[in-house]
Amino acid sequence: MTRFFAVAFLLLLAVPARAEDGYDLWLRYRPMEANAQAQYRPLATAIVSEGTSPSLNAARDELTRGLSGLLDRPVGTGAVAEGAVVIGTPANSPLIAGLKLPLAKLGKEGYLIRSTSLNGHAVTVIASNSDIGVLYGSFAFLRLIQTCQPADRLDIASAPRIKLRLLNHWDNLDRTIERGYAGQSIFDWQKMPDYMDPRYTVMARANASVGINGISVNNVSADVWMLSSLYMDKLAALADVLRPYGIRVYVAARFSAPIELGKLKTADPADPQVAAWWKKEIDGIYRRIPDFGGFVVKANSEGQPGPRDYNRTQAEGANVIADALAPHGGIVFWRAFVYSEKDPTDRAKQAYNEFKPLDGKFRDNVFVQTKNGAIDFQPREPVHPMFGAMPKTNLALEVQLTKEYLGQTTHLVYLPVLFKEVLDWDTMAKGKGSTVAKVIDGSLEGHDQSAMVGVSNIGVDRNWTGAQFSQADWYGFGRLAWDLDASAEQIAREWLGMTFTNDPVFVNQIVPMMIASREAVVDYMTPLGLHHQFASSHHYGPGPWVSDLPRPEQNPVYFNRADAKGLGFDRTPSGSGATSQYAPPIARLFAGSDIPDRDLLWFQHIAWDHKMRSGRSLWDELIVHYDTGIATVRQMRRTWAAMKPYVDDERWSQTAAFLAIQEKEAQWWRDACIAYFQTFSRMPMPAGHAPPPHDLAYYRAIYFPYVPGAASRNKPKDPVE
Amino acid sequence: MTRFFAVAFLLLLAVPARAEDGYDLWLRYRPMEANAQAQYRPLATAIVSEGTSPSLNAARDELTRGLSGLLDRPVGTGAVAEGAVVIGTPANSPLIAGLKLPLAKLGKEGYLIRSTSLNGHAVTVIASNSDIGVLYGSFAFLRLIQTCQPADRLDIASAPRIKLRLLNHWDNLDRTIERGYAGQSIFDWQKMPDYMDPRYTVMARANASVGINGISVNNVSADVWMLSSLYMDKLAALADVLRPYGIRVYVAARFSAPIELGKLKTADPADPQVAAWWKKEIDGIYRRIPDFGGFVVKANSEGQPGPRDYNRTQAEGANVIADALAPHGGIVFWRAFVYSEKDPTDRAKQAYNEFKPLDGKFRDNVFVQTKNGAIDFQPREPVHPMFGAMPKTNLALEVQLTKEYLGQTTHLVYLPVLFKEVLDWDTMAKGKGSTVAKVIDGSLEGHDQSAMVGVSNIGVDRNWTGAQFSQADWYGFGRLAWDLDASAEQIAREWLGMTFTNDPVFVNQIVPMMIASREAVVDYMTPLGLHHQFASSHHYGPGPWVSDLPRPEQNPVYFNRADAKGLGFDRTPSGSGATSQYAPPIARLFAGSDIPDRDLLWFQHIAWDHKMRSGRSLWDELIVHYDTGIATVRQMRRTWAAMKPYVDDERWSQTAAFLAIQEKEAQWWRDACIAYFQTFSRMPMPAGHAPPPHDLAYYRAIYFPYVPGAASRNKPKDPVE
Repeated sequence: MTRFFAVAFLLLLAVPARAEDGYDLWLRYRPMEANAQAQYRPLATAIVSEGTSPSLNAARDELTRGLSGLLDRPVGTGAVAEGAVVIGTPANSPLIAGLKLPLAKLGKEGYLIRSTSLNGHAVTVIASNSDIGVLYGSFAFLRLIQTCQPADRLDIASAPRIKLRLLNHWDNLDRTIERGYAGQSIFDWQKMPDYMDPRYTVMARANASVGINGISVNNVSADVWMLSSLYMDKLAALADVLRPYGIRVYVAARFSAPIELGKLKTADPADPQVAAWWKKEIDGIYRRIPDFGGFVVKANSEGQPGPRDYNRTQAEGANVIADALAPHGGIVFWRAFVYSEKDPTDRAKQAYNEFKPLDGKFRDNVFVQTKNGAIDFQPREPVHPMFGAMPKTNLALEVQLTKEYLGQTTHLVYLPVLFKEVLDWDTMAKGKGSTVAKVIDGSLEGHDQSAMVGVSNIGVDRNWTGAQFSQADWYGFGRLAWDLDASAEQIAREWLGMTFTNDPVFVNQIVPMMIASREAVVDYMTPLGLHHQFASSHHYGPGPWVSDLPRPEQNPVYFNRADAKGLGFDRTPSGSGATSQYAPPIARLFAGSDIPDRDLLWFQHIAWDHKMRSGRSLWDELIVHYDTGIATVRQMRRTWAAMKPYVDDERWSQTAAFLAIQEKEAQWWRDACIAYFQTFSRMPMPAGHAPPPHDLAYYRAIYFPYVPGAASRNKPKDPVE
Repeated sequence: MTRFFAVAFLLLLAVPARAEDGYDLWLRYRPMEANAQAQYRPLATAIVSEGTSPSLNAARDELTRGLSGLLDRPVGTGAVAEGAVVIGTPANSPLIAGLKLPLAKLGKEGYLIRSTSLNGHAVTVIASNSDIGVLYGSFAFLRLIQTCQPADRLDIASAPRIKLRLLNHWDNLDRTIERGYAGQSIFDWQKMPDYMDPRYTVMARANASVGINGISVNNVSADVWMLSSLYMDKLAALADVLRPYGIRVYVAARFSAPIELGKLKTADPADPQVAAWWKKEIDGIYRRIPDFGGFVVKANSEGQPGPRDYNRTQAEGANVIADALAPHGGIVFWRAFVYSEKDPTDRAKQAYNEFKPLDGKFRDNVFVQTKNGAIDFQPREPVHPMFGAMPKTNLALEVQLTKEYLGQTTHLVYLPVLFKEVLDWDTMAKGKGSTVAKVIDGSLEGHDQSAMVGVSNIGVDRNWTGAQFSQADWYGFGRLAWDLDASAEQIAREWLGMTFTNDPVFVNQIVPMMIASREAVVDYMTPLGLHHQFASSHHYGPGPWVSDLPRPEQNPVYFNRADAKGLGFDRTPSGSGATSQYAPPIARLFAGSDIPDRDLLWFQHIAWDHKMRSGRSLWDELIVHYDTGIATVRQMRRTWAAMKPYVDDERWSQTAAFLAIQEKEAQWWRDACIAYFQTFSRMPMPAGHAPPPHDLAYYRAIYFPYVPGAASRNKPKDPVE
C-alpha cells in the first residue's frame, strides 16, 4: 500500500498540474468524483460507431475524449457489449436502423438518446437522421454526465426550435474587433490557408456542443477585401475545418462591392450589371465553398453604403443579393439596425418606419436581422417593435454576447437573463401569447425559416471571452437558440457544473449571483428605462452629460432629456409617438400610467417629484436603484470571495479582481449620473444615501484613452498630466 | 504488479495530457528520463534558504518548481543534509557567510555555484552578493540539469559582461505592436493596476532566467500618454510585479512631452522651463517607482520630435533629460537611428555624421543606442561605423528579436548567429581585436557602463513569440548579453534541450539547421550585400522595384542601384564615401577588390559580368545564392519532417507549416528579384537554374493587405478581385 501511494504520488507529479485558465471552456472533462465515476462507468464502457464520416468521427472522438476524461479510464471504440454507447444514423448504421427509432419528427439536426438493449446487452443509443445530429446528441450525452444527471433509462428526443443558430464575429481583417473585449480576432487570416490554428477546431467543438451551426467571420461594417480571391481561398480553408462540426461560414458583405471589387460604376440593385456581378461573385464563392452559408449585410447604417444611395428600398437591396444566393441555398441576413442623422424622427422609431412598409417584399431567403431593442444593446430595452409587426417577413433576432454598453470584460453580467426576457416578451401581435420566441421560431406566422444571431464575444484571450463568466453568455446563447424554453437558471447550473464544479454549495450560491447580475447592471448604469448614457465612442463608463456629438441621436442628452421638470424621453403620442409602433394593448400600457417602472423613462418624461409605485419620488427612486445596483455587486463580491475553496486559483483570482473593478465602476456610474441629474432636479439626497464624493466637473473630466473594442474610432484626446 | 500498472495508468489519465503549446518556453521542467533522474536526485534533495526576500523567494520557488518537475518528486525546503542545495548571500545566510566564498569579483549580479561540504554533508551552494544574483544562479543550476550537464563537482563563477541587458517593447498603448508579429502587446494597460495578468510574472521569470534586467514598455515612436499620471500608476503596479525578478522598467519618452503634457510652449532643451519640467516629471516618476530605470528616446527620427527642431544637438537633447534622471540613478538610452529626408547624403552615413562630432558631449548616464547596422535590421549588414568611432561615449548595441525584414513569424531564422557576427566583428578602432563586443562591454575604452538592447519579439500569442523557434532569439539574446563569448551553437543546444529534448539525434540535427537558417535568409532575400529590397511599409515580401515612396532613401531602388551596367551601391570614395567612416584598414578593404563577397553590393556597384571569386559572373553568382537559400530551406523542411518522433504534435505541426510557408516565400523572393534584376542585366539564366515562372508584372502586382506589425502604416490599397 505504501508503494501504491508512492507510485500514485510520483505519477501525479509526472504531469505538472495543468493550470485552469479557462481555455477548455465547458469541455474540460476533468475526472469526476470517485462515486460519480462508479455510477457512470457501467453506462459508458465503449463506443460503437458503425459508419464513418467527418462528423461521425468528431462525435466518436468527442465521446472518447470526454468519457475517458470524466470517468478516468480509457473509453475506446468497440463492439456491442454491456454499457456500450452506440452512435449513428439509420443510413450508416445497421444496428441503429434495426432499432426502428422514432426519428422522423427530429428533422435533420435533432437527436434521440435512448437506453435500450441490443443483442441482449444494455446500451445507450445516440441516433439522428444526420451525422451532425449524432454529434449534437453526443455532446448532450456528455453534458448529462458532466452535470451529474441520471444517464440510465434515458429517452431523450431533442430538436432545435431555431434552424439557423449563428454567431456574428465583428472581426476586422487586421484582427481588431469592433466591440471586442477579449483580445484580437481568432482568425489569423495572414497565415491562412497555409497554417490553420488548432484553435479553430476547439472553437468549432465548443460551438457544436451548444448547437451553433453558422458563423459570419467579419465585421458587419464590412471590408470589401473579404470578398477578394485572396481571402476566399483563406475562407475555404476555414470552412474545411468547421464543416465536420456542422458549422457553415457566412461573410459580411459590403453593399458597394460591385464598385470597389467589380470596378462597376454603380452598386444600384436595379442595374442588371450589378445583379450580374453579384451572381458571378456568388457563383465563384460556391465553387470554392459548396456549403457557403450566405451574407450578412449592414446597409445604409452608420455610414455604410446601401440601396438608399440609389433611391432603392432595403428590400430591393436585399433581394438582388438573395436572388444570386438562392440557387445555391444561400441566405441573406439583412440588418435592420438603421437610423439616419438626416431624419429628425426619434431614433427608436426609424427602423420600424423604414422596414414595416416593406413587409412581404423580401425574398424567402432573406432574414431581416433585428436587434432585440430599438436602440442598441442597452442593459435593458423594451423589445423592438418590429417583432410581431412584420408577419410576412423572416425575422432573425440579433442579441449581443460581447458587452458593449455593459461594462465590457470586467463586469459580470449574465446575459441569458436578458435573452429570456426578450424571448418571453409578449408582442400581443396576434393576441396574448404572441411571444418573441414564437415570432422568431416562425410558429406565430407559419414561417418555415427561423434564425437567431449572437454578436460573438470570442477573441484570442486564453479564456476566449476575456472573463471566465462571459463564457456563460456564449454557452447560454447556443443553448437557448436550440431550446427557447430553457431557463436562464438551468443554463447557468449546467454551465457552472461543466466549467467549475457541480458541488451544490457552489452552484446554489453562484446561480443566484449570475441571475442577479443582470438587474444589477441595469440598476447601477441605467435604471427605470434610462438608456444610452455612455461615454462617447467606446461606451465605457458614464457620460449622461454628453451633448457634443455631431449626430444628435448619438448623444446621451438626446436620450435622457433631463431638464428642470424631470427626466425621460416622451415617446407617448404626445411626444415622439414611438409607443404607437407596438400592438395596441402594449402601446396603451407604455403610454399610460400603468407602465412598468422598468420601462418608465424610456417612454415617458416624468417629473422629478412624481410619486412612484414605491411611494418615493422619481428622484429618490432613481438613487435607490443606483445604490441597489452597487449593493448587488458588493454582494456578488462577497459571494465569490467565499467560493475560493471551490475554484482553482487562476480563475478565482481573475474573477475576484474583475468583481472589484465592477464594484468600483458601479460606484463611478452612480456618482457621475447623480452629480449630473442633480443639476436639474435640485433635490437633496434621500436619507441614508451619500452624495457623490466629487462635483460634476470631476466626473466630466475623467477620460480614458485606448479603451478596447473601438480601434477605428479611437483617436485619443490630448493627454492629461 | 497488475494493480500497480492499473493504478499508474489511471493516474496518468487523471490529469489530461498537457498540450505542449510553447507557453512554458524553456522553463518546462518536464520529468527527465529515468536514468537522468536517478543521476540528479542525490544532488538535489532539498533547498536550504536562510534568508527571505522577494528575489530569494523567487529563487527558492523556481528551484522547487524546476527540481520537483525535472526529478519527478517533491523537492521542498529543508535543513542542511546530503544533497541539499544551499542558496543565499553572505549577508542573509550565516551558512554561506561561513564558507567565505570568493564572491568579490562577481559584482552585484554574478553568482557562484559550487559543490562543497557543509556540516559533513555534500551540498551544492548557489551564492551571490545579491539576492538577484542568487536567482540568476538558481536558473543556471536548473539549466545544467535541464541540459543534462554534470552537476556534481561544480565550481562555476559567472558574472555578466554587460551591465544593462534590456528588451525594448515597441508596444503601443492600444496593444498594437510596431513590427510585432506575435499578437497583441502583453501589457493589458486597460485593466492595470486593478488586474495584473499572471503572464507578467511568467515573462519576468523567463527574462530573469537569461539575465535580462530591464524592459522598456512602449514603442519608441512614443505616445505621450505613457508619461501621464494615469499610466504611471499602471506602470508602478507592473514594476512591483517585475522587481523580485531583478527587472527594472523603462519607458520610451516623447521629446515634445513638455509641450503636450506640460503645456509649455516649447520643448527646447536649452529652455530652463523645459529642464524644470523634466525634473518635476522625473521626480514624480521616482516617487512612484524608486528603481525606475530611465528613458529610451527616439528623437528627430522618422517624424519624431527632437532637439534639432530647436537647432540643438542630439547631445543637448539627451543631456537635459539625463540631468533630471541623474540624481535618481536613471539612464537615457538615446537612439542613433536618425536619417533625414532633407539630407541628400547616403542614408548609411547620416547617423555617424550627426553623432561622431558629439563624441564626449553626452552625460555619463546617457547611452547612444545604436543598431547593429547603419540601415535597419537587414538580414545582413556590415557593422555600424559608429562602433569604435565614439570612444568617449557610452554606446549601447541595439539588435532586433522581432523579425522585420526577416520574413516575420513564419520564417525560421536563428538570430544569435547574426548577433555573434556583430559582436565578433573587428572594428580595428584600436588595432586588431577591437571587436564590437569590447566596444560595448566598455573594455576597449575603459567605460564603466555597458548595455545591450533587444527589440522584443514578445506578444500575447500562446507561445509568446508567434513561432516556436523565435523563442530561441529571446533566449539567445539574454544569454549572449550575459556572456558575449557564448557561441550560437552552444546557445542553440541549450535551448533545444530545454525546449524540446536533449536527445542527441534531435539536437545534432537541429543545431546545424538553426545555424544554417541565418545564411539561408540572406541568400534568398538579399545576397552579396544587397539590402532593403522589401515591399513598402510592412516589409513583407520582395519589392526591389519600389521607387515611389516620397522619401528616396526608403526606396529599394535607392539601395540596389540596379542599372544596365550592374548592381550595388557605390559607397567607396568615388561614390558616397561611406567606407571612409570605418577605421582605415576596414575602409580600404570595403573600397577595394578584396572586399568579401558578402559585403560586395553594400559598398560597391559591380558590373553584371564581373568575375567573382567563384569564377562565376555577378549575375550567375546572384542566382546561385538565391537558389542556395531555397535549397537550405528545403533541407530545413526535410530535417524537421524527420523530427516528428521527437516533438509533440502541436509544436511539430506548427513548425512544419511555417517551414512550408518559408520555402514558398523564399521561392517568391528569388523569382521576384530575378525577374526585376533581369530587366537590367539582360543576361540568361545560368545552366540548371530555372527562370522565374511569371513575368515581372506578375510579381509587382502581388499585394497583401493587413500584414501584421504595421498597424499605423497599414492603409490597404484598393481591393483586388
